[in-house]
Amino acid sequence: MTWSATILTLYPEMFPGPLGHSLAGRALGEGIWSLEAVQIRDFATDKHRSVDDTPAGGGAGMVMRADVLGRAVDDVLTRRPDAPLLAMTPRGRPLTQAFVRELAAGPGASILCGRFEGIDERLFEARPIVPVSIGDYVLSGGEMAALTLLDACIRLLPGVMGAPLSGEEESFESGLLEYPHYTRPQEWEGRTVPEELRSGNHAKIAAWRKARAIEDTRLRRPDLIARHGDARRQSPSGAQREEES
Amino acid sequence: MTWSATILTLYPEMFPGPLGHSLAGRALGEGIWSLEAVQIRDFATDKHRSVDDTPAGGGAGMVMRADVLGRAVDDVLTRRPDAPLLAMTPRGRPLTQAFVRELAAGPGASILCGRFEGIDERLFEARPIVPVSIGDYVLSGGEMAALTLLDACIRLLPGVMGAPLSGEEESFESGLLEYPHYTRPQEWEGRTVPEELRSGNHAKIAAWRKARAIEDTRLRRPDLIARHGDARRQSPSGAQREEES
Repeated sequence: MTWSATILTLYPEMFPGPLGHSLAGRALGEGIWSLEAVQIRDFATDKHRSVDDTPAGGGAGMVMRADVLGRAVDDVLTRRPDAPLLAMTPRGRPLTQAFVRELAAGPGASILCGRFEGIDERLFEARPIVPVSIGDYVLSGGEMAALTLLDACIRLLPGVMGAPLSGEEESFESGLLEYPHYTRPQEWEGRTVPEELRSGNHAKIAAWRKARAIEDTRLRRPDLIARHGDARRQSPSGAQREEES
Repeated sequence: MTWSATILTLYPEMFPGPLGHSLAGRALGEGIWSLEAVQIRDFATDKHRSVDDTPAGGGAGMVMRADVLGRAVDDVLTRRPDAPLLAMTPRGRPLTQAFVRELAAGPGASILCGRFEGIDERLFEARPIVPVSIGDYVLSGGEMAALTLLDACIRLLPGVMGAPLSGEEESFESGLLEYPHYTRPQEWEGRTVPEELRSGNHAKIAAWRKARAIEDTRLRRPDLIARHGDARRQSPSGAQREEES
């Protein structure tokens, strides 16, 4: 079945953009996923096709209107009732690899891309929209965030990555950063590939990689260790994973 | 002066991609920023122009070679000694709005985009590269992450955003999510714009917005409050900001 993305945007011409190349582009051509970019202005009712207005209470910029977006959202909810409806916004729930996996396992995603100062808050109160943030920085609009989220999902779809195994040992899948990689040449500028990786001893290699994943995460991202520890203490399935490891 | 981005990538055709449209596209046309996408394969020395090899110690996928990337990196460091050299990788330092502001205030950025399983770790030991992560999820390559980082920087360059003020009150600038926005119509589906925002009383509006920013951050992102509190206790300039507020 084709994984289907529907994007609500003021810039349909930004899609598929980078997703038209490489792995994602090939998969799009093969029908593994599909893309529909819907112009939000098509749901405006005045002759200027306006979608925004000045912020209530004053201030810089413009705010996207709940009435116009409400019509656009209702259209996509009617046509794609199976797909979750997300809105890309820095006020949203931080995107995680677990959420990416959940989305990739489903039928697709509908994504509303905000622009200007933001979206009238009443839309989020009145419609089943999951606000999602790809990180703690501000973009010129939701389009780049939507492309990023789609890229993360598409690479996990069956048939997209060459080796299905390569998704399982990577960063965040176990709450850790991935271990560092090395390849030929064995010596480069006087630096050699770590001895353990050249040993041919699979148990030794696995132990070295696990130790380095833990060490690097502790040094670079102690917040991940704290968060993952909390999650394991709180979730039965997490506790089980801990026993297995 | 033009803010200059140099990208090292296996997919130069992905750039400027979405950054060729809207605000960033207009700014590119006006020379506010410039873009050079360099093909990493041009630094390979064999007839197949190979840039990757199998992982030392075994496992799925391919790893980008330190020798080929070393030459590509040395070329950009020689030609752009003023710009910081970043590499997009999930093992990197999480991108923040503060780092985006720092980059946007500088001469530009050189960005190495990883592909496959990752980059030979020796490259990071041997060259002045800042590994950067845009979030805790895995992408098909560094290209989408580089586009996201550039989008965040470009919108802050002088002359890109319509109203220069609109950058100052937004999410993360004060360690908080931004307050919610509202616009006309004043009533939509029985939901009205909050009374405080319709009061015309500037002090009341500012107080309401600050209270909502704090409340929403506490509810949605308590981690931001904890982190910002820590930063203020540790930094003299942070302490000063606290006194001012």
